[in-house]
Amino acid sequence: MGGRGMATIPIAGGRFVIVGGASLVGSATAAELLDAGAAEVTVFDNFSLGSDAAIAHLKDHPRLRLVRGDVMRMPDLLDAMKGADGALLLAAYMTLNMDRDAWGGLDVNIRGVQNALEAARATGLRKVVFASSNAVYGYGPGVSGELVENTPFHSEGAPPAAILYGASKIIGEQLCRHYKRKHGLDYVVLRYSTVYGERQHYRAANALYIIETYDRVKRGEAPRVFGDGSETKHFVYVGDLARANRMAFESAATDVAVNTSGPRPVTTLDLVRMVTRLAGSDIAPEFVGDTPGQVRLTSGGAFRIAHEEAHRAIGWKPLVEMEEGLARLIAWKESNEGKTS
Amino acid sequence: MGGRGMATIPIAGGRFVIVGGASLVGSATAAELLDAGAAEVTVFDNFSLGSDAAIAHLKDHPRLRLVRGDVMRMPDLLDAMKGADGALLLAAYMTLNMDRDAWGGLDVNIRGVQNALEAARATGLRKVVFASSNAVYGYGPGVSGELVENTPFHSEGAPPAAILYGASKIIGEQLCRHYKRKHGLDYVVLRYSTVYGERQHYRAANALYIIETYDRVKRGEAPRVFGDGSETKHFVYVGDLARANRMAFESAATDVAVNTSGPRPVTTLDLVRMVTRLAGSDIAPEFVGDTPGQVRLTSGGAFRIAHEEAHRAIGWKPLVEMEEGLARLIAWKESNEGKTS
Repeated sequence: MGGRGMATIPIAGGRFVIVGGASLVGSATAAELLDAGAAEVTVFDNFSLGSDAAIAHLKDHPRLRLVRGDVMRMPDLLDAMKGADGALLLAAYMTLNMDRDAWGGLDVNIRGVQNALEAARATGLRKVVFASSNAVYGYGPGVSGELVENTPFHSEGAPPAAILYGASKIIGEQLCRHYKRKHGLDYVVLRYSTVYGERQHYRAANALYIIETYDRVKRGEAPRVFGDGSETKHFVYVGDLARANRMAFESAATDVAVNTSGPRPVTTLDLVRMVTRLAGSDIAPEFVGDTPGQVRLTSGGAFRIAHEEAHRAIGWKPLVEMEEGLARLIAWKESNEGKTS
Repeated sequence: MGGRGMATIPIAGGRFVIVGGASLVGSATAAELLDAGAAEVTVFDNFSLGSDAAIAHLKDHPRLRLVRGDVMRMPDLLDAMKGADGALLLAAYMTLNMDRDAWGGLDVNIRGVQNALEAARATGLRKVVFASSNAVYGYGPGVSGELVENTPFHSEGAPPAAILYGASKIIGEQLCRHYKRKHGLDYVVLRYSTVYGERQHYRAANALYIIETYDRVKRGEAPRVFGDGSETKHFVYVGDLARANRMAFESAATDVAVNTSGPRPVTTLDLVRMVTRLAGSDIAPEFVGDTPGQVRLTSGGAFRIAHEEAHRAIGWKPLVEMEEGLARLIAWKESNEGKTS
């Protein structure tokens, strides 16, 4: 299906569609592509989970096009992709929304991906970047050590919605492989770890921890640590992901799935201490048990999501350390824009 | 959600719906339930993969009801389940059909299961038995040793359609858990290993091996062994599965997923030799490489699918040894019924 380099899409002069673009990663990627000279970036969103706030800073940009459309409606996708070079597929329900509405979640995460790939094929797009997740490695005690691209999917002890989410991402990835094999559609799968950064929303179960901690500290309450605080989290800064998305389009890579995680994992206790300090407080955390009825995702123990393969495939590595990224998030929260979001 | 014994459905006098019933396992289970005194067994099928031949021996049974319906049409399911006590959910695309039509496969294996669970909830069914698969442990070199219920899902090196199939079964299982948590719907998940037996069809990639071997030997051609023949297969006889389905309804078990495999695994070489002998020949097998373009599912090495947990949960264990089950299959193939199927 084409020789080396055929899958490269130069950003300057290129036209891109970001499906599910009115989002944390979508808005950052739109800005990244526009800054790199894209002729047009289409933000496609139905605004059921996306928000005007996420793209408020971009919406008057002359090369940005905003399309209100739905991944469950093929005509919307076909119209939006006509004449484009590449598409980034971000639209998805994460675990918390999957728990509330498994019907809508499987629609968007599976049929929505099929629709987007079918529209990409039909309109002759040259490359798709699919936003997958380290959720493809699952949850629970099996998830420990170094998580590499062939680590299997663990689900023992995880709540149904988390497994539905992880399995839906496995299916999305395989649909990309299927379209490559059947139709020659080039793709790169990026397995995002938990994203955080400016314009952070309240939807991701793991990233929520940062915002919850900040909000409590700002109210003068002790931040809460669940369990003993030794549990690992491995975040990635949104700007690093926006760069990964751009590089996935630019690189010759195709038919590959790689992890995109931050420089290193943190423990939840370290995370809570960093956020407390950056919020200008030295209040000690409170150690608490789990809240019944609330979906919390726990990992078995220490793990690290290896991102070395992403460097080999698309030349990417994360640049923003957690302390720096958190400082940017908190500066944004304390700015006028963050306060009104 | 109810104490011990609440999830029990006595077969005698009970009313059951078998969704995807015009099939190998469906027809055997219908006969099993009718023999045990079920007041009514509804075979629900759209006959796109199911066949009249599969239920020809049952269709004049006075307590059997045949409904032509589709799992993608809620009214069909709601009508069929009205007044029933339990439903067995069998309707699914397997890997070969998933490769041909991933759209239809994800419809049936995911939305079809959601529709069936929603219809079961709406009509007040007391228990659902969901036919899952050892495909939830995946494929490739990771799948070896003892496969138990918490073995993770391996997918390295597997073709997209196989992973789509396995992940769709993971999702089906989690939808059962989700409906139990949200709506109290009792369920048992049975993870079938590859089924074989009378009224064997030509659809399952693994079971096909038995029929292909038999057909070649009967034509006087050498049976083919792919690779060195040391690869493990772990089949289960259809009658053993029909009994497992019945026992899953009868038992107090709920909210559980267990393996239902045959007494022991065989190597492909042993399997080919057994079929050759039972077909009345002593022709030596031919060792061949893989056929390009054909989906073949390979496992890494020796494995056994442990079924001990099924005994603990529903009191079941497999009774029919491979040689005996193959003899029954071949006797059926050589009978008038088998010849005209």
